[in-house]
Amino acid sequence: MATIGASLVRIEPGEVDVELRSRDDLVQQHGFLHAGVLASAADSACGFAALSLMPPGAAVLSIEFKINMLAPAAGERILARGRVIRAGKTVTVCWGDVTAYADGREKLVATMVATMMTVQGRGLTD
Amino acid sequence: MATIGASLVRIEPGEVDVELRSRDDLVQQHGFLHAGVLASAADSACGFAALSLMPPGAAVLSIEFKINMLAPAAGERILARGRVIRAGKTVTVCWGDVTAYADGREKLVATMVATMMTVQGRGLTD
Amino acid sequence: MATIGASLVRIEPGEVDVELRSRDDLVQQHGFLHAGVLASAADSACGFAALSLMPPGAAVLSIEFKINMLAPAAGERILARGRVIRAGKTVTVCWGDVTAYADGREKLVATMVATMMTVQGRGLTD
Amino acid sequence: MATIGASLVRIEPGEVDVELRSRDDLVQQHGFLHAGVLASAADSACGFAALSLMPPGAAVLSIEFKINMLAPAAGERILARGRVIRAGKTVTVCWGDVTAYADGREKLVATMVATMMTVQGRGLTD
Repeated sequence: MATIGASLVRIEPGEVDVELRSRDDLVQQHGFLHAGVLASAADSACGFAALSLMPPGAAVLSIEFKINMLAPAAGERILARGRVIRAGKTVTVCWGDVTAYADGREKLVATMVATMMTVQGRGLTD
Repeated sequence: MATIGASLVRIEPGEVDVELRSRDDLVQQHGFLHAGVLASAADSACGFAALSLMPPGAAVLSIEFKINMLAPAAGERILARGRVIRAGKTVTVCWGDVTAYADGREKLVATMVATMMTVQGRGLTD
Repeated sequence: MATIGASLVRIEPGEVDVELRSRDDLVQQHGFLHAGVLASAADSACGFAALSLMPPGAAVLSIEFKINMLAPAAGERILARGRVIRAGKTVTVCWGDVTAYADGREKLVATMVATMMTVQGRGLTD
Repeated sequence: MATIGASLVRIEPGEVDVELRSRDDLVQQHGFLHAGVLASAADSACGFAALSLMPPGAAVLSIEFKINMLAPAAGERILARGRVIRAGKTVTVCWGDVTAYADGREKLVATMVATMMTVQGRGLTD
């Protein structure tokens, strides 16, 4: 998260916000935030949201995610909100919404659905 | 792409390779490359592959992509290959495979399907 | 929709409900509704929701969709709700939530994100 | 599968073909096969491909899938091929390609990536 300047700004059980300040090196050829940056922020928010409902000592791995870009992501601040839809013993599914704030206005710029896996002990490689 | 140290290493019509050298700030908590980094590399490869078949002057936008993480992405070098499956006038669909190279061995670590849009002139905001 | 016994039960601008009565030939090996049936119902709901905001004479085509199965889909009645997240001139993005009703209780059993395309005149093959 | 007239025509370890004969009640408003039908066939092919590599007694559940429609699916015969990309103890990832055959010609009409889960014993509800 440090690479893209993201930080955790809110942690509730099953819901986490990741904030990102726009930076020159994160925008693509048209001056908007790159889809990969939005995906990284939303994936992190989803991962932490999933982790917040897992037992102590567990780790979280992204199995897969899908993201739709809804509008050009311009603005001085981006908020990625991860919310758990369904928490299972092994598999947790999350929504990740990305909102851009520019000139006092907000706009939904991307929406993600992510599947996360609970990893216990040394199970990292399945 | 510069933010994650990625570079275009091969461009053919409909097929593009993006290379990434592993770097300490791109790995997540377990020492593997973060899913967001893999997604960024694969999305870039898919976008350039789509662009390679578009008419001169066109630009490309990611409508959506979905990525599955198949194995922990460790290694000194990552190659994301974007290939066009179907090139339409408006919508182009691409596969993006991400391979990790470690100690002379290669492993498929992620697979993406991405939908790209051709943007002509000032159509950027649809 | 007739093949799976689905019917349109509510149409609002940008929001459509498709109802499905459970039937023996729609369940898979464990007695639950097959993922393909849930996907068909949700895709139809999303397609009609997108169409409800398109100009007269337009048709709708599914570009892609992704569905997560959240819980076994058992019950006497299934409701798939399609909602437009973003309506563009060419591309419309929708959420599709599938809820199962059994013994007076409801449960979210699947969630979809779908990308729909507006088709005007003879543009069907892009 | 019987509902849509699909049948298993080839089973190899990690690779399965499901065949579908076009039928009047499976086409949508433009005379092409409905996206939900393509998704059902591809999901079945992926599920059986995953199952073919699982230990005896295991069952398979679709966690999620994503499908891109690449071309209008017309033709007298449809073949959905499921192939395992990665078989894990818990999670298996598959590609599912759908090809249409019309007048002696074949065309790739849809491509899926699906995540399947191995279910042992009574784990069905996770």
